[in-house]
Amino acid sequence: MKENLELFSKRYSCRSFTDELPEMEKVEAIALAGVRSPSAMNKQPWLINVITDKALLTEMDEAIMKLMSEMEDQSMYERMTERGGKVFYNAPCMFLILKQPGTDLDCGIVTENITLAATSLGLGNVICGLASFAFTGEKGDEFMKRTGFVSGYEFGMTVLVGFEAMKGTPHEPDMAKITHIK
Amino acid sequence: MKENLELFSKRYSCRSFTDELPEMEKVEAIALAGVRSPSAMNKQPWLINVITDKALLTEMDEAIMKLMSEMEDQSMYERMTERGGKVFYNAPCMFLILKQPGTDLDCGIVTENITLAATSLGLGNVICGLASFAFTGEKGDEFMKRTGFVSGYEFGMTVLVGFEAMKGTPHEPDMAKITHIK
Repeated sequence: MKENLELFSKRYSCRSFTDELPEMEKVEAIALAGVRSPSAMNKQPWLINVITDKALLTEMDEAIMKLMSEMEDQSMYERMTERGGKVFYNAPCMFLILKQPGTDLDCGIVTENITLAATSLGLGNVICGLASFAFTGEKGDEFMKRTGFVSGYEFGMTVLVGFEAMKGTPHEPDMAKITHIK
Repeated sequence: MKENLELFSKRYSCRSFTDELPEMEKVEAIALAGVRSPSAMNKQPWLINVITDKALLTEMDEAIMKLMSEMEDQSMYERMTERGGKVFYNAPCMFLILKQPGTDLDCGIVTENITLAATSLGLGNVICGLASFAFTGEKGDEFMKRTGFVSGYEFGMTVLVGFEAMKGTPHEPDMAKITHIK
């Protein structure tokens, strides 16, 4: 039983990736796990755009850092600077999930399938909500176009995937969040 | 690789459960996978209430069927009647996820961890949003109390888990939902 559940205890938020792009076979397998996600009434109100254009990812990363550096509240900028100054942690691959408005829960399900599929293939991964900033600044429209936004869909979430440059540690589970009603 | 990703291709929505409650060791392990879910800023804005009180589940099921039978639009009532007249498909165990308002995406992540953990233990499972109806009718307040709602949290989602009385088939993945940007 323990072995079956190892996947859930192994997952952690990787914050340091190598430059190397994982084999496309693995990248495609992760996207496949994503589109296998359950959704309300099986409406699948999402799209998965797999971005492996490193130059584009770097441009987006730099635009987000710039935006954060100009914010009144500097806490995010400082946190990312402490962590190495890269919002995407040098990840060579981004799974951008687009969603229809009002389908956040469905989008969360896809997010987790992608995260766990990457983990099960031994790849580092991290859910990155900050990526949404790339689509808000002066280059927002350009980035939406280049990352494949389509009409009727909006930013859902991103998952960054790659080889771990540094291993991290999973959080301790908080058992107090579980209540049994027998 | 295929073996590592089997979990995602095996999952399907089970719509027929036996009466038998799975071993509590498994039920607890699934809840543990739930609280291991990633969340934005690790705020964990959710609670997991594990309901194995079959009498309570039956009461809730009957209340929901009654509510649906009284709705002007009879389509949901008819669909559930065709499927055997039980909203919870006779499942002996419900994972009720409560969430803080505005955290649907985090709740979706927990939902999927629970669903996949149950699948990985060989148990049938189905995500059931209709359960929310139980907390809206004339017995709504009573059911909220008995299922352990607490202040600051609202209905998130439920996952029903048990032994499969009848096997179902996973959906075919829609590859057209994946776009590669290289």
